[in-house]
Amino acid sequence: MLGKFIVIEGLEGAGKSTAIAFVKAKLAERGIEPTCTREPGGTPLAEKMRALVKSADESEPLTDMAELLLLYAARSQLVENVIRPALSRGEWVLGDRHDLSSQAYQGGGRGIDAALMQNLKQTVLGDFAPNLTLYLDIEPARGLARARARGELDRIEQMALDFFERTRERYLTLAKADANTVIIDANVELEQVQAQLDQALTTWLDDNV
Amino acid sequence: MLGKFIVIEGLEGAGKSTAIAFVKAKLAERGIEPTCTREPGGTPLAEKMRALVKSADESEPLTDMAELLLLYAARSQLVENVIRPALSRGEWVLGDRHDLSSQAYQGGGRGIDAALMQNLKQTVLGDFAPNLTLYLDIEPARGLARARARGELDRIEQMALDFFERTRERYLTLAKADANTVIIDANVELEQVQAQLDQALTTWLDDNV
Repeated sequence: MLGKFIVIEGLEGAGKSTAIAFVKAKLAERGIEPTCTREPGGTPLAEKMRALVKSADESEPLTDMAELLLLYAARSQLVENVIRPALSRGEWVLGDRHDLSSQAYQGGGRGIDAALMQNLKQTVLGDFAPNLTLYLDIEPARGLARARARGELDRIEQMALDFFERTRERYLTLAKADANTVIIDANVELEQVQAQLDQALTTWLDDNV
Repeated sequence: MLGKFIVIEGLEGAGKSTAIAFVKAKLAERGIEPTCTREPGGTPLAEKMRALVKSADESEPLTDMAELLLLYAARSQLVENVIRPALSRGEWVLGDRHDLSSQAYQGGGRGIDAALMQNLKQTVLGDFAPNLTLYLDIEPARGLARARARGELDRIEQMALDFFERTRERYLTLAKADANTVIIDANVELEQVQAQLDQALTTWLDDNV
């Protein structure tokens, strides 16, 4: 039997790390120990591509296209060398971000051409897609305040608020259009977020496993 | 006045380095000192992307898509941060490879989907193209023998001969279709290659400068 691929998505400060730990614990209750991945990254070469995306500075700005292409290069490495092989072995994979992040940040936030986004996704991923995506929806100002309270902000996190507004808008549009994505309201208290995660995951596991 | 962008193209062992030195000397005779670039690479970030393409090994093979995307990410950095600014300042640029290499190696050699190749090129480069491309055409077996005699072969150079046959075929098809590309027969002795380069360059300079 093939394994399942579950992805946690959301803006900075939406609570992805906490959600991942929660989902991992819930899966463990059913005896499932997923391989955990993060994007961009997750393989030695993909981590180097991640470092390039994160390291660009004023001495040599990364073009929007170079950023997008590095993200998809890293995704190609991760999917072909880690995720697909794990699923083929019947293992589960729990992903910290996947393609939806590129659609939202680069497609929505940066406004990269929709036809190119579609073409890249189709060529790199084909029909490959998560079995379940849990999208943690948060108001950008609230999420950024949380991220800021945690410490340093990286290059992406230093963007202006309207970048994140466009990103969130694209996240919501695509999440609503995808039958395998559940929108979790992450603006509320942690307990309430986890109650939603619990319900979404339990319903899905009962239906699909 | 805008500068001009001249590119030297060809398979391994076609004699690109010697041709670049020759063209540089010919330009110097007219008082032109070009900025020299190489692809992939030519900026600090693009060189790191080049290193990723070259460093992939059996422990983690680079997918064909990741290779293609890294090459275009590097090209985006080089064109936007080095070539376009130089041309805008009226400087000339002499390139060791450019987009035609990706069309030939990845499009022809690896057989990557033509629509994606076109879409990537259009999105990364738009109408940007060299003013003159000198394509050094060589039979793959002859070129590889020369490259081998020079010493180590890198990851690309270790591909099977039919990969280079497909690459050369795509080079020739595209070179014939482009009015700004001159095909140089590089199967002959160095003197005869340089005579062809001299004639092509002199004709073009007389017409265009």
